[in-house]
Amino acid sequence: MRTKLLTAALALAALGGASLEALAQAKPDVLVKQRQAAMTLQAKYLGPIGAMIKGTVPYNADIVSRNATYLEALSQMPWDGFHPSTQSEKSKAKPSIYTDGPKVQAAIDSFQAATAKLGAAARAKDEAGVRAAFGAVAKGCGGCHDAYREK
Amino acid sequence: MRTKLLTAALALAALGGASLEALAQAKPDVLVKQRQAAMTLQAKYLGPIGAMIKGTVPYNADIVSRNATYLEALSQMPWDGFHPSTQSEKSKAKPSIYTDGPKVQAAIDSFQAATAKLGAAARAKDEAGVRAAFGAVAKGCGGCHDAYREK
Repeated sequence: MRTKLLTAALALAALGGASLEALAQAKPDVLVKQRQAAMTLQAKYLGPIGAMIKGTVPYNADIVSRNATYLEALSQMPWDGFHPSTQSEKSKAKPSIYTDGPKVQAAIDSFQAATAKLGAAARAKDEAGVRAAFGAVAKGCGGCHDAYREK
Repeated sequence: MRTKLLTAALALAALGGASLEALAQAKPDVLVKQRQAAMTLQAKYLGPIGAMIKGTVPYNADIVSRNATYLEALSQMPWDGFHPSTQSEKSKAKPSIYTDGPKVQAAIDSFQAATAKLGAAARAKDEAGVRAAFGAVAKGCGGCHDAYREK
């Protein structure tokens, strides 16, 4: 069900946001607030997994499973907030995020694929799989931030 | 899988946050930011469903299904942010949210049950069920805000 839903969400996103745009009456400042909220929550749920992998806190498979599942949902949420109408809003987004369409989409796709892999390993309580999948998720965050977020 | 996970998350929450607290090194201002982020995203995904139910925008069962599923996940996310350490942080939370433990938990439980019902109807593409379930979700938001959020 979950995968089916995520697939449906991706399909919607692939429509170029046309159907979403019809709904999106949200003002630019609200869109920025919403996308930043999604990033804040991604950090909330990824952070503890990172700490467990580093060994700063004990590994807890239940928390990893919960957090990775939340992260998988959250990985769908920020992107429609980078609407062209937000270009002049105050934020750390570099102007190139609005012009690098296909590159940005590829980065999103790869991040979402990485979180899906992490989520599957986490729900299977496969600690080795979680450790293996974590790097790609963290790299997804970092790569996009390096490219599209001001320091 | 999803329900099992949500159940597991609720079970964790029912531990009184003991296992989460061991992890929660987050500072009070971060906890406030995180809980506000979850509220912001709940509004992002509930708003369009409300608009469709009111008839302001056309009903779209795919978007309702996606949004309600996100909302179900998001309904799990704000509450650990109301940690006692955040009591003196600037926010609209009334002091009573930190002292009304059982009443707050009952409100959370009922809100989560309402979002689960909405999510199930939405995924079944049951528009009548969505319309029937929506009221309890909106009432959950409003009831808690009336009781525990400053105007």
